[in-house]
Amino acid sequence: MTAQIIDGKAFAANLRGQIADHVARLKADHGITPGLAVVLVGEDPASEVYVAAKHRQTVEVGMASFEHKLPADVSEADLFALIDQLNADPNVHGILCQFPVPDHLNERSVVARIDPSKDVDGLSVVNAGLLASGEKGLVSCTPLGCLMLLRDQVGAMSGMEAVVIGRSNLFGKPMAQLLLQENCTVTIAHSRTKELAGVCRRADILVAAVGRAEMVKADWVKPGATVIDVGITRIPHPEKPGKTKLLGDVDFAEVSEVAGAITPVPGGVGPMTIACLLANTLTACCRAHGLAEPEGLTA
Amino acid sequence: MTAQIIDGKAFAANLRGQIADHVARLKADHGITPGLAVVLVGEDPASEVYVAAKHRQTVEVGMASFEHKLPADVSEADLFALIDQLNADPNVHGILCQFPVPDHLNERSVVARIDPSKDVDGLSVVNAGLLASGEKGLVSCTPLGCLMLLRDQVGAMSGMEAVVIGRSNLFGKPMAQLLLQENCTVTIAHSRTKELAGVCRRADILVAAVGRAEMVKADWVKPGATVIDVGITRIPHPEKPGKTKLLGDVDFAEVSEVAGAITPVPGGVGPMTIACLLANTLTACCRAHGLAEPEGLTA
Ligand SMILES: NC(=O)c1ccc[n+]([C@@H]2O[C@H](COP(=O)([O-])OP(=O)(O)OC[C@H]3O[C@@H](n4cnc5c(N)ncnc54)[C@H](OP(=O)(O)O)[C@@H]3O)[C@@H](O)[C@H]2O)c1
Ligand SMILES: NC(=O)c1ccc[n+]([C@@H]2O[C@H](COP(=O)([O-])OP(=O)(O)OC[C@H]3O[C@@H](n4cnc5c(N)ncnc54)[C@H](OP(=O)(O)O)[C@@H]3O)[C@@H](O)[C@H]2O)c1
Repeated sequence: MTAQIIDGKAFAANLRGQIADHVARLKADHGITPGLAVVLVGEDPASEVYVAAKHRQTVEVGMASFEHKLPADVSEADLFALIDQLNADPNVHGILCQFPVPDHLNERSVVARIDPSKDVDGLSVVNAGLLASGEKGLVSCTPLGCLMLLRDQVGAMSGMEAVVIGRSNLFGKPMAQLLLQENCTVTIAHSRTKELAGVCRRADILVAAVGRAEMVKADWVKPGATVIDVGITRIPHPEKPGKTKLLGDVDFAEVSEVAGAITPVPGGVGPMTIACLLANTLTACCRAHGLAEPEGLTA
Repeated sequence: MTAQIIDGKAFAANLRGQIADHVARLKADHGITPGLAVVLVGEDPASEVYVAAKHRQTVEVGMASFEHKLPADVSEADLFALIDQLNADPNVHGILCQFPVPDHLNERSVVARIDPSKDVDGLSVVNAGLLASGEKGLVSCTPLGCLMLLRDQVGAMSGMEAVVIGRSNLFGKPMAQLLLQENCTVTIAHSRTKELAGVCRRADILVAAVGRAEMVKADWVKPGATVIDVGITRIPHPEKPGKTKLLGDVDFAEVSEVAGAITPVPGGVGPMTIACLLANTLTACCRAHGLAEPEGLTA
């Protein structure tokens, strides 16, 4: 078998197009512009690249982008004062603080300070609780993106066996909740799992979010399964000196001979994350204004 | 094989003894008496029996028990006013509203009104989120009780396969989170699960919380597995006319020939629930006063 390649880049571009259409209608019909505020503390080069990409895509879909750069030695009090101001600002519908933050700041406290209805990264305790309770909240962007790809690829997932490798608050745990909501039988595997290959082989839907390059081999995959590769490992490029290359958690060459469908790295899950950040911001904006939420953008 | 019978009644009695000792020390050393407030709306006979049992056990361990009975037609505003008063009362460390409440009241809203640090039933969105995020909160009593039985029976669970049948907010989902924290590989099964027997047969630890009498048969159970039976179905007693009998989700006669250990119904999980309610009240009291929490009472 040769797997169908799930084109996350095209899917994300299409999603951004839908979001842009909706944003244009919000402006035309209600005079409302959704706004996303991004807070960056310090000068981590990778974070700067990522924040710039978020800014560019936010503007491209017609939303307002508010960037706040704070010095690496900013006090918690000053950071919280900024977050409080953004919480209160009616033009800001989504707020995120780019992680990692410097060591003197606590990520959980920073997230907890953000109004849960503006927590478009979906990382707060309240949003985790809403998801766990089957109530409406904001869902972490990368698992939300994987859900959208799966709904598009697989359709109804009811009764399927899903295996998620990884149990982080950022990805694995919310992904498992989402698959459970889709009525999959869900298994969560992690570093203590015994016979991981065998556990994975049960999966109709296999989601890997570990960060170990090419860990998932062909004989870990049930023939015909849908494989979602979330992992990202950057290695020196084997052919281009001085360049780097991204690898997923899945051995793509091998597994694409067995799976029914598979996301590549790069170009699979990766592009969905920012697109879902924009989707969450639009959702938060509609909720803040008591307007109907666009279809298909939420869990 | 004949399974070891896990004596939840004895375990719960022992746990209440430990709690009583700790309560006595709190009084002697700090002049503090933990207090549990129970709100009962209307006159459901089953709820009255349950509330009476809670009251009796609360008093037995030396805690203060505050009972509030409200008429079935109480307004939401009046109920919330009472909850607000209990939230503010420094002598009340735990609050629970006995469910079901009459139809004009919304259970989720009632739970949401309780201060999460006094939500000893662990049902609020905030406590679900704390559990899902691996942070310290208050955990739903019945899954907490199952965890205690499992820690006592199995010891270290790391790497074991755990299967939970049922995915309610009250039991299945928090149970899965607790087993994941114990480093089990966790599968959540439910009414849409295909080949449930085969899924269950993978389990080293099988927890059934469905509410279908004797559904789990011997050939669903891996030889030597630990089986926790949470389900309760009341049927007319086969021999004693006019009396009733409780059945679990597990066919005890069959499964006890295969399992390594098993909880009976009654006398297994059941008695743990109120004992864990008292444990949560003690934990909440210690936290409210900034005192060290007793060991072994939390997740
Ligand atoms: N936009 C995107 O595309 C995107 C977004 C988020 C994450 N990611 C990528 O996804 C990966 C995971 O991210 P994360 O934030 O979830 O990472 P994380 O917090 O480091 O979690 C990694 C998980 O993998 C598990 N694990 C580690 N070694 C394992 C092994 N040998 N076998 C099985 N499980 C193992 C860990 O288990 P324990 O819990 O037992 O330690 C942990 O649960 C990373 O590569 C990250 O870069 C990509
Ligand atoms: N103190 C105690 O001992 C205590 C405490 C709590 C609960 N319980 C007992 O535990 C049982 C479950 O309680 P609950 O509150 O969690 O109940 P619930 O909210 O009714 O949930 C039942 C769960 O069982 C699943 N289910 C239903 N039929 C099934 C089938 N044929 N195969 C597999 N799964 C099936 C349902 O799946 P879907 O989600 O797909 O519908 C649901 O997730 C009840 O008997 C209750 O009395 C006892």
